Amino acid sequence: MELPNKIKLAITSLHKLPGVGEKSAMRHILNVIEWSEQDIREFASSIAGLTNLTRCIECGMISDLEKCSICCNTDRYDQKIICVVEGISDLLAIENSGHFRGLFHILGGVLNPLLGIGPAELQLDELIERARKYEITEIILALNPSVEGDATCSYIKSVLSSSIKVDRIGFGIPMGGSLEYLDSLTISKALENRKMM
Amino acid sequence: MELPNKIKLAITSLHKLPGVGEKSAMRHILNVIEWSEQDIREFASSIAGLTNLTRCIECGMISDLEKCSICCNTDRYDQKIICVVEGISDLLAIENSGHFRGLFHILGGVLNPLLGIGPAELQLDELIERARKYEITEIILALNPSVEGDATCSYIKSVLSSSIKVDRIGFGIPMGGSLEYLDSLTISKALENRKMM
Repeated sequence: MELPNKIKLAITSLHKLPGVGEKSAMRHILNVIEWSEQDIREFASSIAGLTNLTRCIECGMISDLEKCSICCNTDRYDQKIICVVEGISDLLAIENSGHFRGLFHILGGVLNPLLGIGPAELQLDELIERARKYEITEIILALNPSVEGDATCSYIKSVLSSSIKVDRIGFGIPMGGSLEYLDSLTISKALENRKMM
Repeated sequence: MELPNKIKLAITSLHKLPGVGEKSAMRHILNVIEWSEQDIREFASSIAGLTNLTRCIECGMISDLEKCSICCNTDRYDQKIICVVEGISDLLAIENSGHFRGLFHILGGVLNPLLGIGPAELQLDELIERARKYEITEIILALNPSVEGDATCSYIKSVLSSSIKVDRIGFGIPMGGSLEYLDSLTISKALENRKMM
């Protein structure tokens, strides 16, 4: 039994999302066709609205305005600290934790020579320029731990002015984690990062 | 941190899908905005294409033509048997099993007085009319086992001509299933449906 072309097209598009297999995509699309016409149209136009999103000229976060709500907010008390993240969802995760009140900078990825991602492909010059322009005193590198993430951190440290304090977020046992189930690399990092009580 | 309205709209639409939580919807949409403009437009138009799908006038399956490929296919050797299913995905599951070569009929749900779904809301009259018109000799009820499914089966049996053989698909232990992990209702059905060897 062949499904009509219209449906196959929609399944193919949804299947492009990471973590959505072909069966899930089909199940979702077969659900969508039961929606009201109004709901389907809203869904379609909301997706169409995702093209040409404007980005904050400072940090690179998606934003309705020229500057995002974080870069605009002069009440944030750590305006001399920039937290560097790979992407939008990392920024949201840190911001929503409520424990950071500085600025952000979205790098747009990490250095990866195999995929052809060099310094020019990332928002690195913008970071250096921003650090100079706003006299940033501290940069926190919140890149995920991986070979590429580690290399990117080292690279950023080397290109930034030596007057800026450059930190990387801490690695160790996550809260609620259980030693028994953690990988040995995390445990070795946790031992390395032990703190005097 | 508030996400731009455009993104929130897309998240709300995707979140309507059963099994897609708000966090997953956000993760998916943040992935979509990294797609090429071309891909996003294709996704949007494929969703828009899901309105006003044509249905087969016989069985109710979505179809590009007036009659679906199953109802058109005169080579199917069980043209006097109709398998009644709740929805499109049930039809696909049975058809793709490759073990049924008769016709289908999509009921569009099951009787559910609490949700206001009575016989008039289902494709029941169409089933009766089809059975009469094409001199159907056998109807297999492939509705899922539930209180509503059971009641719907009894109702269909009662309204169909007594000359038609009405069966319901068998319930029992699924292939590869393990008695140890099955619920007691399935086990009781399996005992009830035992067959002489």
